[in-house]
Amino acid sequence: MSQTCSFCRILAGELPADVVHEDDRALAFLDHRPLFRGHVLLVPKTHHTILSDLPAADVPAFFTLAQRLERAVEDGLGADGSLVMVNNVVSQSVPHLHLHVIPRHKKDGLRFWLGPRHPYDEENPAAAYAEKIRTALAAQDR
Amino acid sequence: MSQTCSFCRILAGELPADVVHEDDRALAFLDHRPLFRGHVLLVPKTHHTILSDLPAADVPAFFTLAQRLERAVEDGLGADGSLVMVNNVVSQSVPHLHLHVIPRHKKDGLRFWLGPRHPYDEENPAAAYAEKIRTALAAQDR
Repeated sequence: MSQTCSFCRILAGELPADVVHEDDRALAFLDHRPLFRGHVLLVPKTHHTILSDLPAADVPAFFTLAQRLERAVEDGLGADGSLVMVNNVVSQSVPHLHLHVIPRHKKDGLRFWLGPRHPYDEENPAAAYAEKIRTALAAQDR
Repeated sequence: MSQTCSFCRILAGELPADVVHEDDRALAFLDHRPLFRGHVLLVPKTHHTILSDLPAADVPAFFTLAQRLERAVEDGLGADGSLVMVNNVVSQSVPHLHLHVIPRHKKDGLRFWLGPRHPYDEENPAAAYAEKIRTALAAQDR
């Protein structure tokens, strides 16, 4: 546990939260500044920073729970769909892994994807990017 | 396989893609219209629509691979971080489950979260939303 991490402090009961699920390994609670009401954050009880830090042994339970939360947000709030998301480092407000489960409705006014797109072109061909990613994947096996 | 699903057609080799990983159960390839170059889509080979449709038996391999792709995108492209995301129904362009792995850089100009936020208030208290979600979770166990 980190004394300065606000999610660790919620886990320790030092900060309040509207809890929707708790078990031995994870806590799910409402984001206090929701994009839409019912916006849930799922956090592992052990302090990990980014998604790839979550130990393989914890992956099945974490994401099976994410699926359950997705259904619960959709069914419980009558949402048309949902956005399930993890920001790693950039746009990550709290450096403790958290998975967002956000209810979505058709024409809900959410404007995102407004940033510039960066298409592939002759100087930046897709094949070169695919090759870099394949090489990095292969390096993980060494 | 769906004859009309463009991801099923990529899986069948009927449409081209810049593949970064393939195994028995999943394919990862570049989004042809990337938010940032190196934007990867991970799709299960079986046609499922949304995240919660993915069978529990497939969850560990799918998300362990998502973790590997996250690291590969970050390391292979020298990114500061990443955005890992699934749109369910709303904002979902192809109705075949796909997990986005998008490289992010500090000050990369991505403007999102520009939609209106919907704070909790007296008429819409957080506790009421938490209760609806908890009830929907409990209903899954029945």
